[in-house]
Amino acid sequence: MIGGIFGAVGKKGKAVAKGGNSGNGNHILSEEEKEKRKKKEQLWEQKKYTVQAHVIDIITGKSVVVLNETEAMENDVRQGYRVHVKTSSGGDKICIVDLSKEMVKRGEIGVFGDVAHALKIEEGDIIQLVKMERPASIEYIRKKLDGEGLERAQVRSIIHDLMDNRLSEAELAVWISAMYIRGMGEDEVVSLTNSIVESGDQLDLGVKPVADKHCIGGVAGNRTTMVMVPLIAAGGVYIPKTSSRAITSAAGTADTMEVLAPVDFSVDEMKRIVLKTKGAIAWGGGMNLASADDKLIKIRNPLSLDPRGTLLASILAKKKSVGAHYVVVDIPLGRGVKVMNMEDAEALGADFIKIGKHLDMTIEGLITDGSEPVGNGIGPALECRDVVEVLKGGGPADLRNKSAMLTGKLFELVGKVKPGEGYDVAMNLISSGKAWNKMKDIIAEQGGDPNVRESDIPIGQCKHTVVAEKEGKISHIDNKAVSRIARAAGAPKNKGAGVYLHRLKGDRVRQGDVLFDIYAESEASLDYAIKALDVWKPIEMEKMLLGTMR
Amino acid sequence: MIGGIFGAVGKKGKAVAKGGNSGNGNHILSEEEKEKRKKKEQLWEQKKYTVQAHVIDIITGKSVVVLNETEAMENDVRQGYRVHVKTSSGGDKICIVDLSKEMVKRGEIGVFGDVAHALKIEEGDIIQLVKMERPASIEYIRKKLDGEGLERAQVRSIIHDLMDNRLSEAELAVWISAMYIRGMGEDEVVSLTNSIVESGDQLDLGVKPVADKHCIGGVAGNRTTMVMVPLIAAGGVYIPKTSSRAITSAAGTADTMEVLAPVDFSVDEMKRIVLKTKGAIAWGGGMNLASADDKLIKIRNPLSLDPRGTLLASILAKKKSVGAHYVVVDIPLGRGVKVMNMEDAEALGADFIKIGKHLDMTIEGLITDGSEPVGNGIGPALECRDVVEVLKGGGPADLRNKSAMLTGKLFELVGKVKPGEGYDVAMNLISSGKAWNKMKDIIAEQGGDPNVRESDIPIGQCKHTVVAEKEGKISHIDNKAVSRIARAAGAPKNKGAGVYLHRLKGDRVRQGDVLFDIYAESEASLDYAIKALDVWKPIEMEKMLLGTMR
Repeated sequence: MIGGIFGAVGKKGKAVAKGGNSGNGNHILSEEEKEKRKKKEQLWEQKKYTVQAHVIDIITGKSVVVLNETEAMENDVRQGYRVHVKTSSGGDKICIVDLSKEMVKRGEIGVFGDVAHALKIEEGDIIQLVKMERPASIEYIRKKLDGEGLERAQVRSIIHDLMDNRLSEAELAVWISAMYIRGMGEDEVVSLTNSIVESGDQLDLGVKPVADKHCIGGVAGNRTTMVMVPLIAAGGVYIPKTSSRAITSAAGTADTMEVLAPVDFSVDEMKRIVLKTKGAIAWGGGMNLASADDKLIKIRNPLSLDPRGTLLASILAKKKSVGAHYVVVDIPLGRGVKVMNMEDAEALGADFIKIGKHLDMTIEGLITDGSEPVGNGIGPALECRDVVEVLKGGGPADLRNKSAMLTGKLFELVGKVKPGEGYDVAMNLISSGKAWNKMKDIIAEQGGDPNVRESDIPIGQCKHTVVAEKEGKISHIDNKAVSRIARAAGAPKNKGAGVYLHRLKGDRVRQGDVLFDIYAESEASLDYAIKALDVWKPIEMEKMLLGTMR
Repeated sequence: MIGGIFGAVGKKGKAVAKGGNSGNGNHILSEEEKEKRKKKEQLWEQKKYTVQAHVIDIITGKSVVVLNETEAMENDVRQGYRVHVKTSSGGDKICIVDLSKEMVKRGEIGVFGDVAHALKIEEGDIIQLVKMERPASIEYIRKKLDGEGLERAQVRSIIHDLMDNRLSEAELAVWISAMYIRGMGEDEVVSLTNSIVESGDQLDLGVKPVADKHCIGGVAGNRTTMVMVPLIAAGGVYIPKTSSRAITSAAGTADTMEVLAPVDFSVDEMKRIVLKTKGAIAWGGGMNLASADDKLIKIRNPLSLDPRGTLLASILAKKKSVGAHYVVVDIPLGRGVKVMNMEDAEALGADFIKIGKHLDMTIEGLITDGSEPVGNGIGPALECRDVVEVLKGGGPADLRNKSAMLTGKLFELVGKVKPGEGYDVAMNLISSGKAWNKMKDIIAEQGGDPNVRESDIPIGQCKHTVVAEKEGKISHIDNKAVSRIARAAGAPKNKGAGVYLHRLKGDRVRQGDVLFDIYAESEASLDYAIKALDVWKPIEMEKMLLGTMR
């Protein structure tokens, strides 16, 4: 007797363990499972039920519909399930189910603004609901949770469902947690990067060479990008730089550039500017590049959850989206910044280089001193003044030297200059006036006033000077504390607000010597910043006695 | 020179790594950090800002307010941050921030029904907002993510914030993911169990001995609870049983008992019934026992994420909430149920016993055969008929024997009978009529008709009989497929719907022999169940050829 009696399907007897840590978690869908999935969906199609739309005029950023709890349960639809929402005019969308006991009555469906708008649903419209299998991407998230690496198609499926708002915040949080704890293989990071790139627009300049730079961050001031872009462009290398606004710092590059010129451009406008001037400094948030990353960041930020693999993918997807083939990555190392020991810095640099190779990017990681702010000004206008001074040949030496060093390394990486000569070439571009002339072109092309002088840049008219209480030597300037005080004074919203450092680490000071000034645009903001000094101390003095024991 | 110059605070230099997997993750708040947190909050208190309430009449089950994105960012408030929401009448509540570009205008706050109701906020009310530090419980979640065990106070703090709706779904999902991947220590499971117990009401009968039973689930039919409760009560042991309704099965104990009597009681009503009859079978969802567990399940279920530790805590919290000191746990083992090998079953049983000791519960884990349904009927009324027949001395042998075995083990555990005599004592309680008399008392006390006869229990009038297509031996009856077919036929909503098995595993059948009947309350439901047979096959026949190779 061979098979064939009723019920005798050839099952593979695949064990999917539940309820414990012992699962082997092999959740890839087989052909057989796909077939079963299809049959199930045909079955559910027959069980579709009809409800009347109650439009809730709220934009949630999610594809969620609210169903009556009892009615949904009767139709085998539970919290977090997916339903196919179909309108009489032929529109359809897969939505996540939220259940409500009271808000939605039997025979009704609560449709939020996002879904109502997408499907042109109006109050009282008749809607058909069909229960769906949960997206395969959830199986891949589970697989990752169980410690397996994901294949490219699986990562792409997650990003695809993410872009379609088909995954709940909880599901995405599980994925990010899994990547955090389990780590990610090289292939997986490359898959994630490529999937993020595919999720948005891409800038194709059609010229060569295109370069980019990135800083891991954490250093106050450090406005090297604004010095480097005109330097790099003046050296003949294209650099379509997209930057962010401040999140927790006192100023982002976009905030600082905005002191001189508009920064909000479309991809096409960006292309026009860069093809003309070779360089531009724009706000990345205004373009639709690497869109999935913005959605991932919305989950990662509130949780402060930044797995190494997603960090790499997030950064490199942005570089790849603008078509960069050469990238220098500044990895500041020191107390209080993101990377706090040489081993971590080297590992991070090596990861960038490895992943970059798969993405057709030549990357150099540069581990820099992140132990104190770079430049004297902290806050959009104060940093902008430093930048303009540096480009004109003066300004803070640390900002000038670091920018020239990073630019020089990039020139060497691209092959524009011989190894070891990059720094001098960059310094010459400054001293010859070419760098500032290039910046003027960029400012003009972005719609600003190219004849701006550093003294034109308005600084907050309210000032408070902090002096040394005792004689001593400055042992530490705390990046985070400096940023917090600048923010308390009003930065980045008030562009003239911030902190100006008069002394650097290692300086000897006498009682009464000026340590730093706080600038604000109103007395109230200044008062608030002064009070904030009680919480965040920007400057630490050397101590003779480091501890006592008895 | 000893300390003291401006800015020289004694920092511990504690390194909290970010952006990678290398963090040591020691996030416990020190006294110093608490002090700093307090100072920060004083600072933010001064930066409170005033907005006007726009009430959104939707119950979300979360304490979320929606702020204008630009205005919030200017006030340093970001997505997922917490704000203290204060009304002019003195109400206040900590809420999670959601940001919106369009929905909420500057100067406004979107307040969902939950928060509006709790604070009695009406449209146009003036609201003060103060930014808050994020709850310490989030630090504990991060700590768990980084692989450290949590202390009792930390687990309690998470559950406390969970009950206050102060943690977002994403944050809870991270916690559950972390427990899943990192595992949990014994202390941690005990802490979680106790915290869940404290989150709800507790039933204190003030009598002894109080027992309970639990089944890990996955077996179709298997309505042992309804046989065991009258048996145990008839044997002189108190058993205030709370049960669930079906989630994915064809019937829960609560659904089945409801065929005979109401099951929705308050804690006080439950106490009254049990003090009178020694036993009751109620719906757990109607009481406020172990409330935090319901909230955790809402996150765990859509993700099918059931870490061992939360499974144990979830079950034992319910037992502890009803004051049980003796518990038998039925762990069905077999193909297609939750526990699929002896090793896992033994480990789970051992965990129950260990954790139980800390909770002052004597637990016996009983590994049972879960490879096929127990009882012939699947569906509320069909299972109920089996139960009544068994209590009267007839009915399916497997259900009778298993119920008597479990009950006997409990009697032995409590010390009511000598080891080895429990089964016979239980069987005698059935044959003497005491069990059925006790059930009648319970039915009466719960408000049902104690004179019910099994033939009174209405079964769906539409029937479809499935026969063997060929001669052969039944090798497997699939619990899940049987449940799915019963659900497709209308169970548990239609109490008369379900499947009745005429043959069991190992039975030899001839072509045309009846395998099972499907019952439904309408022809449409029956048709649907018949179509579902194309997806789920309840019965597998033995095959001669298990595979081919060439």
